[in-house]
Amino acid sequence: MSQPQPEKTAITPRRDQDFPEWYQQVVRAADLAENSDVRGCMVIKPWGYGIWENMQRALDAMFKATGHKNAYFPLFIPLSYLEKEAAHVEGFAKECAVVTHHRLEAGADGRLRPAPSSELTEPLVVRPTSETIIGASYAKWVQSWRDLPILINQWANVVRWEMRPRVFLRTTEFLWQEGHTAHETAAEAVAETEQMLRVYETFARDYLALPVFTGEKSATERFPGAVQTLCIEAMVQDRKAIQAGTSHFLGQNFAKASGIKFQSREGKEEHAWTTSWGVSTRLIGTLIMAHSDDDGLVLPPRIAPSQIVIIPVTPKPETRDAVLAAAQLLATELRAQTAFGEKLTVEVDKRDIGGGTKTWDWIKKGVPLRVELGPRDLEKGSVAVARRDRGPKEKALIPNAEFVGQAAAILEEMQAGLLARATAHRDAHTVKIDTKEEFYAFFTAKNAGKPEIHGGFALAHWNGSAEVEEKIKDDLKVTIRCIPTGAPEEDGHCILTGEPSKRRVVWAKSY
Amino acid sequence: MSQPQPEKTAITPRRDQDFPEWYQQVVRAADLAENSDVRGCMVIKPWGYGIWENMQRALDAMFKATGHKNAYFPLFIPLSYLEKEAAHVEGFAKECAVVTHHRLEAGADGRLRPAPSSELTEPLVVRPTSETIIGASYAKWVQSWRDLPILINQWANVVRWEMRPRVFLRTTEFLWQEGHTAHETAAEAVAETEQMLRVYETFARDYLALPVFTGEKSATERFPGAVQTLCIEAMVQDRKAIQAGTSHFLGQNFAKASGIKFQSREGKEEHAWTTSWGVSTRLIGTLIMAHSDDDGLVLPPRIAPSQIVIIPVTPKPETRDAVLAAAQLLATELRAQTAFGEKLTVEVDKRDIGGGTKTWDWIKKGVPLRVELGPRDLEKGSVAVARRDRGPKEKALIPNAEFVGQAAAILEEMQAGLLARATAHRDAHTVKIDTKEEFYAFFTAKNAGKPEIHGGFALAHWNGSAEVEEKIKDDLKVTIRCIPTGAPEEDGHCILTGEPSKRRVVWAKSY
Repeated sequence: MSQPQPEKTAITPRRDQDFPEWYQQVVRAADLAENSDVRGCMVIKPWGYGIWENMQRALDAMFKATGHKNAYFPLFIPLSYLEKEAAHVEGFAKECAVVTHHRLEAGADGRLRPAPSSELTEPLVVRPTSETIIGASYAKWVQSWRDLPILINQWANVVRWEMRPRVFLRTTEFLWQEGHTAHETAAEAVAETEQMLRVYETFARDYLALPVFTGEKSATERFPGAVQTLCIEAMVQDRKAIQAGTSHFLGQNFAKASGIKFQSREGKEEHAWTTSWGVSTRLIGTLIMAHSDDDGLVLPPRIAPSQIVIIPVTPKPETRDAVLAAAQLLATELRAQTAFGEKLTVEVDKRDIGGGTKTWDWIKKGVPLRVELGPRDLEKGSVAVARRDRGPKEKALIPNAEFVGQAAAILEEMQAGLLARATAHRDAHTVKIDTKEEFYAFFTAKNAGKPEIHGGFALAHWNGSAEVEEKIKDDLKVTIRCIPTGAPEEDGHCILTGEPSKRRVVWAKSY
Repeated sequence: MSQPQPEKTAITPRRDQDFPEWYQQVVRAADLAENSDVRGCMVIKPWGYGIWENMQRALDAMFKATGHKNAYFPLFIPLSYLEKEAAHVEGFAKECAVVTHHRLEAGADGRLRPAPSSELTEPLVVRPTSETIIGASYAKWVQSWRDLPILINQWANVVRWEMRPRVFLRTTEFLWQEGHTAHETAAEAVAETEQMLRVYETFARDYLALPVFTGEKSATERFPGAVQTLCIEAMVQDRKAIQAGTSHFLGQNFAKASGIKFQSREGKEEHAWTTSWGVSTRLIGTLIMAHSDDDGLVLPPRIAPSQIVIIPVTPKPETRDAVLAAAQLLATELRAQTAFGEKLTVEVDKRDIGGGTKTWDWIKKGVPLRVELGPRDLEKGSVAVARRDRGPKEKALIPNAEFVGQAAAILEEMQAGLLARATAHRDAHTVKIDTKEEFYAFFTAKNAGKPEIHGGFALAHWNGSAEVEEKIKDDLKVTIRCIPTGAPEEDGHCILTGEPSKRRVVWAKSY
């Protein structure tokens, strides 16, 4: 007699077997992205890029609604600009792609090489972030307080050389948006920093179905050069944290480095107060780790490249045309419906391959609703509807017209369901901890093998010192994710030193 | 007695004084872009980027309507990929940005330098175009004819080192889209190449109000490696041509270089047939040179970042709030109107500066309609409306409600008017020429100074040889812009050699 088999899943390994490898396999099975021959650089395939396009569209509208405009600044940054920044920023990141030549020529061996005669006098760095080159422009644009605020965002690619890349989460090249604003007063700049954090929080919740902690980074975790770094932190299914977006109040530091000066209302020369804020394709990785299951990607309907796929079932040539026509008609009717204030997105999968393969393709791709339509459905005037948030074999037979009327509501219900599930998961694994013993036990894996299963997020008191952070990071690989916004003052004692503390902070392991 | 003064214009010099310098000044006065400290790289400012965003949105919808999806491929291309391409492409472009190091470090002098220990084994080239890296992916994705066609587009930045940059028209870094498709048959790939040319032609006509010649490039002017290069060619106001978009049928050349092979329906291994097609931020330069006047930018309403600006006139503090409220109300009413199938875009200029400065700012920026609204207008229930296609001082007093109802129609009329004007200009300066003498005279400037005023586009016969093209290019700086699509066969004689010819081709000077 054979052993009882666990239910077969579309993704191997399962989450409970090897979470990091499961993640890679979901990306692959959903056809989201692949590695290129350029170390650390990914190819974002159409289904993955479709998610990014939806993220861009939603965020862009939110940025514009808060008064921002888009612009575009050069990819290359003169080395001298970074030197200015390096001079005032201790933690300056040095892993950059450096352009040193501007021409290729054939060498003696007939192969291409950088032409020695084309060596640049000043090397150029491929932007790791654009503060310095944008600062140089703002310095030219701003003379008077009347020129402020400047509220600009840029959608761009950036490069940070990665020694240990992981698709979407940490890649050498990635896509992002970077907002850069300059203001007359510190208060305005702080308000902007906080406003953009709220935009990110709202976007994460309403589009990505991700509940996030919002708060401030400790000095150790702050963006180099920032006065204050605010962030949104999400919990994914292995209970680790992902920093999904940041908003920095830069004080006058960058304005001083770049010379952004203005004549104030009182006629004095002052430096502007600046902010920067960004999210990146890392959000796609966060989304995958937060919602997907052992059958592949699970997409919140509001961000899915297609919300509904119609799979025509055409067993016999004589009914094929009628089924395809009905599928097209159904698609048209569905596209006239509205969910989340926008028209439904619908695909008809007319590929000439088996129905089972198609169904599993779409399960792995995470399309929210699959609709099968065959000759018998046509006779009965019904369709077989399967939801990605239910088991892969669960189907409901619904009269055609009824489904068209219900589709939007089902999608909205699924969106809410994913948020509720992610919130319950996060809340179940976010624990107030008051002793060092409990804290260390919480972050120690309960199981020997993969994946590590530790407690999750700990809300614990801290004395405010970098030494405590360092010790805990060394011991447990745990860091302060944020000092939460709006957390009530509460007397307590630092988890490590026992010194008095006024507020709990969020501790976690992170990606 | 003083000399009679020519009417003062907002832009100095005027077009008839120095066209290239006028162009630079329009870009500046309209606040579209500026040069950065990185040679040849521009900063695209919000008003310029807004034009690009509108172009992107319209084109992207057209690409998707023709079955394409977006994806994203790496910025960096391994040198060995370009070697493969260089091997089969004679005219391979070598002016590229070359990345040789991946880390910065402080040198002995304390200044940053590329860390010698971080030198790359294989240099990376910043993409000048993505055929080779996309080809490497397609080679992995395609096994069977069932995997074809692949219909993908990418929006990206690309870099080609420019020794003589000119903002928007020729810059070291520029933004573009590049479509890359792979097909089962030559006929399908040719159909795709032609389809995308029609998309570009339609876009140029319907959005940019630009009539273009469409046709095929001669072998001399073809994209290196292409079997056929199709193009759209626009005439700008100094009668020169600008190549505004290209669509290439690449045959099996690139598929062979990249190894894109598939098993055919007959079970044989074959190479795919590929195409590529692109337009870039060069379109913005074309738009400026085609429509603008001596007072600055003129924008076709369908592509303007804002179609209407409302300028509240607030001479007295006591009426200020009422005027601002009325301006906001008017903006809301206008935004509910539809032109070209989309809601009107409206801005209210609430800046705290003089009304004259505001008015001239918007004239120079090319906003199609300017609406002034002051206390007296409020009393009368009317607004003062000025059109960018009329004189700067011409205003019409229109009852408020009437204007709201008419605005869309006025914008559509302006759009049609710009196309008609550009078409008349092109037609007036496109001439059939049959003798060498006339041809040489046509392309010889009639005036001694700036700007050069030559004839425009010549439709003339050609024997098909590269030698004739070279001679004419050397003598006159004139090239064949295209062999027009659908031009009737017509017996004639080569303009230079007198040899028989079957078809006229389009000759012009170009940017």
